[in-house]
Amino acid sequence: MSMNQLGIVKRNIVRADKVAVEKLSHFGVASVHEAMGRVGLMKPYMRPIYPAARLCGTAVTILLQPGDNWMMHVAAEQLQPGDVAVAACTTDNFDGFFGDLLATSFKARGARGLVIDAGCRDVQELEKMGFPVFSRAIHAKGTIKATLGSVNIPVVCAGALVNPGDVVVADMDGVVVVPAAIAGQVADAAEKRESFEGEKRAKFAAGVLGLDLYQFREPLEKLGLKYID
Amino acid sequence: MSMNQLGIVKRNIVRADKVAVEKLSHFGVASVHEAMGRVGLMKPYMRPIYPAARLCGTAVTILLQPGDNWMMHVAAEQLQPGDVAVAACTTDNFDGFFGDLLATSFKARGARGLVIDAGCRDVQELEKMGFPVFSRAIHAKGTIKATLGSVNIPVVCAGALVNPGDVVVADMDGVVVVPAAIAGQVADAAEKRESFEGEKRAKFAAGVLGLDLYQFREPLEKLGLKYID
Amino acid sequence: MSMNQLGIVKRNIVRADKVAVEKLSHFGVASVHEAMGRVGLMKPYMRPIYPAARLCGTAVTILLQPGDNWMMHVAAEQLQPGDVAVAACTTDNFDGFFGDLLATSFKARGARGLVIDAGCRDVQELEKMGFPVFSRAIHAKGTIKATLGSVNIPVVCAGALVNPGDVVVADMDGVVVVPAAIAGQVADAAEKRESFEGEKRAKFAAGVLGLDLYQFREPLEKLGLKYID
Amino acid sequence: MSMNQLGIVKRNIVRADKVAVEKLSHFGVASVHEAMGRVGLMKPYMRPIYPAARLCGTAVTILLQPGDNWMMHVAAEQLQPGDVAVAACTTDNFDGFFGDLLATSFKARGARGLVIDAGCRDVQELEKMGFPVFSRAIHAKGTIKATLGSVNIPVVCAGALVNPGDVVVADMDGVVVVPAAIAGQVADAAEKRESFEGEKRAKFAAGVLGLDLYQFREPLEKLGLKYID
Amino acid sequence: MSMNQLGIVKRNIVRADKVAVEKLSHFGVASVHEAMGRVGLMKPYMRPIYPAARLCGTAVTILLQPGDNWMMHVAAEQLQPGDVAVAACTTDNFDGFFGDLLATSFKARGARGLVIDAGCRDVQELEKMGFPVFSRAIHAKGTIKATLGSVNIPVVCAGALVNPGDVVVADMDGVVVVPAAIAGQVADAAEKRESFEGEKRAKFAAGVLGLDLYQFREPLEKLGLKYID
Amino acid sequence: MSMNQLGIVKRNIVRADKVAVEKLSHFGVASVHEAMGRVGLMKPYMRPIYPAARLCGTAVTILLQPGDNWMMHVAAEQLQPGDVAVAACTTDNFDGFFGDLLATSFKARGARGLVIDAGCRDVQELEKMGFPVFSRAIHAKGTIKATLGSVNIPVVCAGALVNPGDVVVADMDGVVVVPAAIAGQVADAAEKRESFEGEKRAKFAAGVLGLDLYQFREPLEKLGLKYID
Repeated sequence: MSMNQLGIVKRNIVRADKVAVEKLSHFGVASVHEAMGRVGLMKPYMRPIYPAARLCGTAVTILLQPGDNWMMHVAAEQLQPGDVAVAACTTDNFDGFFGDLLATSFKARGARGLVIDAGCRDVQELEKMGFPVFSRAIHAKGTIKATLGSVNIPVVCAGALVNPGDVVVADMDGVVVVPAAIAGQVADAAEKRESFEGEKRAKFAAGVLGLDLYQFREPLEKLGLKYID
Repeated sequence: MSMNQLGIVKRNIVRADKVAVEKLSHFGVASVHEAMGRVGLMKPYMRPIYPAARLCGTAVTILLQPGDNWMMHVAAEQLQPGDVAVAACTTDNFDGFFGDLLATSFKARGARGLVIDAGCRDVQELEKMGFPVFSRAIHAKGTIKATLGSVNIPVVCAGALVNPGDVVVADMDGVVVVPAAIAGQVADAAEKRESFEGEKRAKFAAGVLGLDLYQFREPLEKLGLKYID
Repeated sequence: MSMNQLGIVKRNIVRADKVAVEKLSHFGVASVHEAMGRVGLMKPYMRPIYPAARLCGTAVTILLQPGDNWMMHVAAEQLQPGDVAVAACTTDNFDGFFGDLLATSFKARGARGLVIDAGCRDVQELEKMGFPVFSRAIHAKGTIKATLGSVNIPVVCAGALVNPGDVVVADMDGVVVVPAAIAGQVADAAEKRESFEGEKRAKFAAGVLGLDLYQFREPLEKLGLKYID
Repeated sequence: MSMNQLGIVKRNIVRADKVAVEKLSHFGVASVHEAMGRVGLMKPYMRPIYPAARLCGTAVTILLQPGDNWMMHVAAEQLQPGDVAVAACTTDNFDGFFGDLLATSFKARGARGLVIDAGCRDVQELEKMGFPVFSRAIHAKGTIKATLGSVNIPVVCAGALVNPGDVVVADMDGVVVVPAAIAGQVADAAEKRESFEGEKRAKFAAGVLGLDLYQFREPLEKLGLKYID
Repeated sequence: MSMNQLGIVKRNIVRADKVAVEKLSHFGVASVHEAMGRVGLMKPYMRPIYPAARLCGTAVTILLQPGDNWMMHVAAEQLQPGDVAVAACTTDNFDGFFGDLLATSFKARGARGLVIDAGCRDVQELEKMGFPVFSRAIHAKGTIKATLGSVNIPVVCAGALVNPGDVVVADMDGVVVVPAAIAGQVADAAEKRESFEGEKRAKFAAGVLGLDLYQFREPLEKLGLKYID
Repeated sequence: MSMNQLGIVKRNIVRADKVAVEKLSHFGVASVHEAMGRVGLMKPYMRPIYPAARLCGTAVTILLQPGDNWMMHVAAEQLQPGDVAVAACTTDNFDGFFGDLLATSFKARGARGLVIDAGCRDVQELEKMGFPVFSRAIHAKGTIKATLGSVNIPVVCAGALVNPGDVVVADMDGVVVVPAAIAGQVADAAEKRESFEGEKRAKFAAGVLGLDLYQFREPLEKLGLKYID
């Protein structure tokens, strides 16, 4: 391990299995996160820049410096079809590191979207382009190109560890990171989990209570829950 | 009064008069809150999970423990047609205590929506179902079922005191709580207030100034307002 | 300069050149802010109350007292066609200082919208009216009319200095303030900037990398950027 | 119940039993809150204005309007020796509602301190006077005297319901509210709770683990906790 | 007015009258702000980095870029004995722009302290040096030297407009800015205001109520304040 | 890699070299973070619970569930002399997970302190004990013992990745994490860095400007910095 994680671009990364990624793309963030044992979520301040935004792909990670989006251009070259750019910053920063020009470039590389723990701009154009972005802020503030960050090193993005090649799934409920090594396993677990949901939903719709469906009455009574009139 | 407010479910609550609730459902939150003398609002961090969300009904209150949604299932049984679930938490927590399965159950009971001083998930499905939720966060984070809270005790939700049976009205402008005992009185006052609005609106549209309509010029001058060129 | 900036209404203000304002109205906030040298933006907490909101006009400034919207009515009289009301407050306050009645009055005066470093209400009606508002909060909380503020003095609104007559441009990306004296110059610079964007966009769409388009490879190498496998 | 809670001063309130208050004054906030079953705490944003601040007394409640401290003077007359002033506001406001002059007046009435869900100023003088204040902000911003609030009505202060006469205990760990009716019961429970602490502390100091002292090993194993090397 | 406010250092600034500055240094922030008519305060998030910090001096203003403290060194040369450095940033940033080395340099120039709408570090050393800093954050994060900002242009710092040469007063209650042109006038008003305080304090200490001292009973009654038992 | 990171306790961890830890303990957080290339810092919301708090040791990591401090007791057994407990939580939570009893236990095990991305209580007692804690909140709120987390897995704490055995250094300026593998290298770099500081400090104290000491005048001029009068 080097002492300085800045100024590095890793070209060859191990991306999660394509079949697993494809399978994961059919599930919502809540399901995927449950399938992993309720871990892997980013902070809830990460929001889609437009309501229909949704994405699933393999992470190309970016470590940015405050107010400096130079590494975005460096990262563009590392993006492959099916990738999602995941950008962290060395400090809290809300500037607009990303706009429609970079989105055009990323899209041309086959990227499926961006997750950025910072700000984004040109959001109306991005919606028109259908390029999904999940960010902590929308801000017109422009950035410079002066300092080195890194591409494809492990980053902490909005509270979640992201290794290059991990699967990132994002929708209206938030953003979840699935380590590449367990992508298939998680996809299977999510599938299994969702297979039970239809039946449950039907029962709830028919008026069955969770108290009965899950047999909660007895444990609740044991803990001392008291019904009064 | 018991020393410990946890572990209690009150079955019989006095709901606000149905006619008053129906009448209140025709007014916006801003009008209802003005009709009460500008009190009763929840904090502005409570937002609808989708733009068209709106609700009006009688409160079934829930006190949750952090990261634990067990009481949601206990509350479901207490919900009656026309009710709104109002959930507070013993500490600040942003987890996703509520999703589409619980919404299906609440809806089957006749509930009109949920107001929760915590997080909510499956928001896209909830919008499709037309089940309105007002929450402080959207977050996929799942919860457990391990600790007792209470149902139908007085709770403080987003800064407002809510007693079971109170009327809760929510729209794009926020959430307001009307004590059950004065629901009819408030509905009348809101009606009276709105009856004057049409005339005022017409005058403003015709170019009449508030300065003249409300005769503000004299009091402003007395306080020393100075016009300079 | 008077010692006390409260209790003043300035009637004659120098508005930015109409041609410059008209020209600026064709550019986005991000472009205008870049054209000014990356200054002039309000804080990113200022958000449109509905997605399609957008405005460009000359500022009539308002200094409000907390929980008191009296000066809004005083300001209405000073509004001329093409103006935008820009309201600051002497302290952080999230109350709903502005609703559909005031909007009707402002619209009748020819105002193009409101930028307010405080709260707004009746947002559904405002969207129906097509009256754009950019605010820091949506809150039903009503206000009183008891204390003097000022109209058309310099104000600090959401971190930006606004002089009466300055141009204010707002869209989904935020709010930017262009000093009246340089409005034409900024409009020209924005035009020039945008004229280059089409060509760049085409190149990015064709797969050209920013690394090559902007000749970043050499300076990055000089700074020590290392590619590893 | 009146529709409008503003403009009321209740003179006769039922204060918690003096012996119970005296007893409660010997315990820390954490102990008192545990003794109540882990309820009754205000939000953690309430902080002492100086490190050694600590108070325990019976609440005289105040409902303030934003930027207006008139009701502080009205409340002064209702304060009796052993009381603590507890001030809420109808909306989020950080102004300095309270300073050294009011503190001199409150102290002369025998008040033991102030808990305010808003701002405070003159904090250096207050420390010199030894008048403890717990607030959400320190802010020099002055206030006016123009609008009615209330004194001695139930208020929600920093997320906690406070009825006049309730016991309020505050120290470095926060602020807790004990309903007057159960003050004695809570004091007894706190005493009991603390009586076990000394023994536990000695065991922990001697190196005994909580795992053994509380017999946690078995339940942890049952839930599936795995030790790996 | 130039279009671009960045990249400028103004050498000759008009500092407030020394006698007025000296006089202002004897009053607290709350008094000075009241003497100005309750304007001029910075946001309450600006806090002293150690309890005894206090300063009063003439502003040398600095506009910083995010994560870049280069202009601090440029500003050092412009500091004269009796000055206070006042640093704003083009965007919200919490990095540690200032530490003990720069403080040594500023102190050698005769500066009385720093007010910075960003982060500060080495706070323990700064306390030992007795160099007062008021900042929005304490953060070890280092900064670079790559981009131009400006020195001695008007800046918005923590919500307040600061012109070079203005007087800045800061203590435990916050930070207030007095325009250079009215410094003497404000100092006189503050003196007058404080001269009444001693008498009032004595009356309050003797048990006189504000209700009587300020003759509030009649106006309160007129507004409808009701006393109930 | 297992799919579920919860319910695991790793007993054997590789702690950073003792000599390196000892050496690092002599440097401040700012120096250590600079020596690492300006990475490794936790968010600035992590603050010492008392002014003199400072720690340096090897991390025993803890992953907590919201409102549940059971794993603290599990972690106690894994603590060795020289360790620092580093606790993260699966979601944002401000409850008081840690107080004087646990501190007594941790201290008996030889632990040097706690870094917790959540709340802490009994802070006055902790100061008396001299047990340093860095936390995001002080809150009396008690926690339960019901759900499994983990001990000694990699955690993200306040935005920083912490592996068990890493060195954690904390003082008034914040908290920094040094990966175990490079602890010696970082200590050497910090030493080297500090060795230059004394000379620089002397020069600054003598009135030498950073502009001259670092030869900034030329690059600033090249970038276009303009001096005006």
